[in-house]
Amino acid sequence: MSDTAAPLLLTPGPLTVSDRVRAAMMRDWGSRDEAFLALTARVRAEVSALAGADPDRFVTVPMQGSGTFAVEAMLAAFAPMDAPTLICENGAYGRRMADILRRLGRPYRMLHGPETEPTDLDAVARALADGPKPGCIAVVQCETTTGCLNPVSQIAALAREAGVPLLVDAMSGFGGLPLDMAADGLTAVAASSNKCLQGVPGLGLVVCDRAALADAADRAPSLSLDLVDQARGFEATGEWRFTPPTHVVAALAEALDELAEEGGPTARLARYGANLTRLLAGMRDLGFRPLLAAENQAPIIATFADPSGEEGWPGFSFARFYGGLKDRGFVIYPGKLTQAASFRVGCIGAITPADIDAFLIAARDVLDGMRP
Amino acid sequence: MSDTAAPLLLTPGPLTVSDRVRAAMMRDWGSRDEAFLALTARVRAEVSALAGADPDRFVTVPMQGSGTFAVEAMLAAFAPMDAPTLICENGAYGRRMADILRRLGRPYRMLHGPETEPTDLDAVARALADGPKPGCIAVVQCETTTGCLNPVSQIAALAREAGVPLLVDAMSGFGGLPLDMAADGLTAVAASSNKCLQGVPGLGLVVCDRAALADAADRAPSLSLDLVDQARGFEATGEWRFTPPTHVVAALAEALDELAEEGGPTARLARYGANLTRLLAGMRDLGFRPLLAAENQAPIIATFADPSGEEGWPGFSFARFYGGLKDRGFVIYPGKLTQAASFRVGCIGAITPADIDAFLIAARDVLDGMRP
Repeated sequence: MSDTAAPLLLTPGPLTVSDRVRAAMMRDWGSRDEAFLALTARVRAEVSALAGADPDRFVTVPMQGSGTFAVEAMLAAFAPMDAPTLICENGAYGRRMADILRRLGRPYRMLHGPETEPTDLDAVARALADGPKPGCIAVVQCETTTGCLNPVSQIAALAREAGVPLLVDAMSGFGGLPLDMAADGLTAVAASSNKCLQGVPGLGLVVCDRAALADAADRAPSLSLDLVDQARGFEATGEWRFTPPTHVVAALAEALDELAEEGGPTARLARYGANLTRLLAGMRDLGFRPLLAAENQAPIIATFADPSGEEGWPGFSFARFYGGLKDRGFVIYPGKLTQAASFRVGCIGAITPADIDAFLIAARDVLDGMRP
Repeated sequence: MSDTAAPLLLTPGPLTVSDRVRAAMMRDWGSRDEAFLALTARVRAEVSALAGADPDRFVTVPMQGSGTFAVEAMLAAFAPMDAPTLICENGAYGRRMADILRRLGRPYRMLHGPETEPTDLDAVARALADGPKPGCIAVVQCETTTGCLNPVSQIAALAREAGVPLLVDAMSGFGGLPLDMAADGLTAVAASSNKCLQGVPGLGLVVCDRAALADAADRAPSLSLDLVDQARGFEATGEWRFTPPTHVVAALAEALDELAEEGGPTARLARYGANLTRLLAGMRDLGFRPLLAAENQAPIIATFADPSGEEGWPGFSFARFYGGLKDRGFVIYPGKLTQAASFRVGCIGAITPADIDAFLIAARDVLDGMRP
């Protein structure tokens, strides 16, 4: 059923999904019909289970829109009005949380760190000890800017010790990277239907602590992105307040089945890990230099230095490399680092090490054609 | 390709779309790849053309999420901070605009009208003449609460005369009902990928005046729903700021082709009109009473009195009627009126008068089975 002309997406999302996930979009659903409400309930329960979020204590609230919409809904609900949110920032998605809080008029403090390094735990501990106590902490689990993995569980331990709620943007890793909300005592986690869940884009997900949600009423300046109102709808009647992206929800339900059949997040992460290993080795063979130390690199997306203008790379430009790969059926991703010219290649989605091998052959071919 | 087990949706949306529109979702797109940017540009241009919005003066800004997200983005951009928005209200969607403005902390005045009657033009004229001048007017083109058609062009004439911008929630009728932003001098119109455009749900659309948009910077308290920022992204690079629902956008592009092939909004409205005529006649034959006078009824969705408990309707309940129709492959819609018990049957989507005939046969069968 897939369009063979469509390229393989080696990106952080939208990414390549399976034919069966796309095929789940081939019917229409009445959004207030009981069949769709049952589908919604199943998705919510399974997402909670993936987050290690027992239903007595936590609730999953899907939110229409992109992942950023879900992060905004999470921050609008849980970032206090009167005490700063401490943002552990080492990339564009940490900075985006600051952009959101600025718009919301909520105070925040940035804990800047280098983009190629995980959040420094000592720096978090110092930020919690020095100055006024933050109202909450916000961190990005896997910073898609680089693919850098941040130590969520260790930050959670510091947060618990200090009695400060922790909010996690788990967008790019949810469904792959380990996450245990109950064990870590997380207050809220934002995720996406796309990314490691391997559904199609169009839906965000916020898994959050019920008690914290009960305290968050009337905080959001947005009706559409009000997490409390949205949750109330689901809990009261099982219905979405506003028209859901029914086909996207159906694709996510199918993607969750597919994830279970693959063996859950552990098996999925193993496949992504195999993709990454193959990718890093092959790219090194081609002469590319990864920007992250191996131990900081999540198997989500890898960042490489753009060698344009370097000795040994005559004729190389990212635009030509991208175009040549596209012609051969592979879409890669531009860089987002502020510190260095770079580009990115994703490891996630319905792709296997054999796809990575095919990509590497294509990359060699493109590079050969670019040499003067 | 369609799932024959899926019922026909006789609802105001999500509605039944064609197999070809669903089939357009069977490939993945890189959201920053030029092929997808071209698709986005084409959708934006065609939506502007449907709105009678010449590109020199107007711009189409797609917005992730449901239609309400687009209405909120429109109001956050264009409803003034310091002068009330006059909301012409005769149903749930007018009241929803008030809910949004309350959250945004923007002043508004309600011009209440009966749910079964179009907005009263004399009342609008009086509201413009009496008291402080409104900062803008907001109206729902077709109030989905009932299917009542409001006189947008006549309200626009009054608004122009008073020098007050007019914002239109054209959600349920866009792509079917006539709309001419340039001729009517509208400031902004909100629409949906679903509804009369017959795409799948998951995307809102705001068509707006470029000059008004240029004055609207930094007004929105939401990053995600900031129309100015969103437009800037499209205009600067052709890219979406945040991950788009790629499959939904592709379905909309296909749906726009389909609309053109059908003969545009005029031909589509004629088909919906034939659906409505058949529906009203058949439902009257079954003994149901429409709640709107024929001249106020748009061919979008029709509202009928719920006859439960009335003489001549022993054994009738809406739940049983709904369930019997569902078993026979038809999903109808509960009522939303505050004034009377009612239910609704939609006329829009990939349905024809023959489908309405089949529905009426099923309805008769269900009613026969319900008589004691």
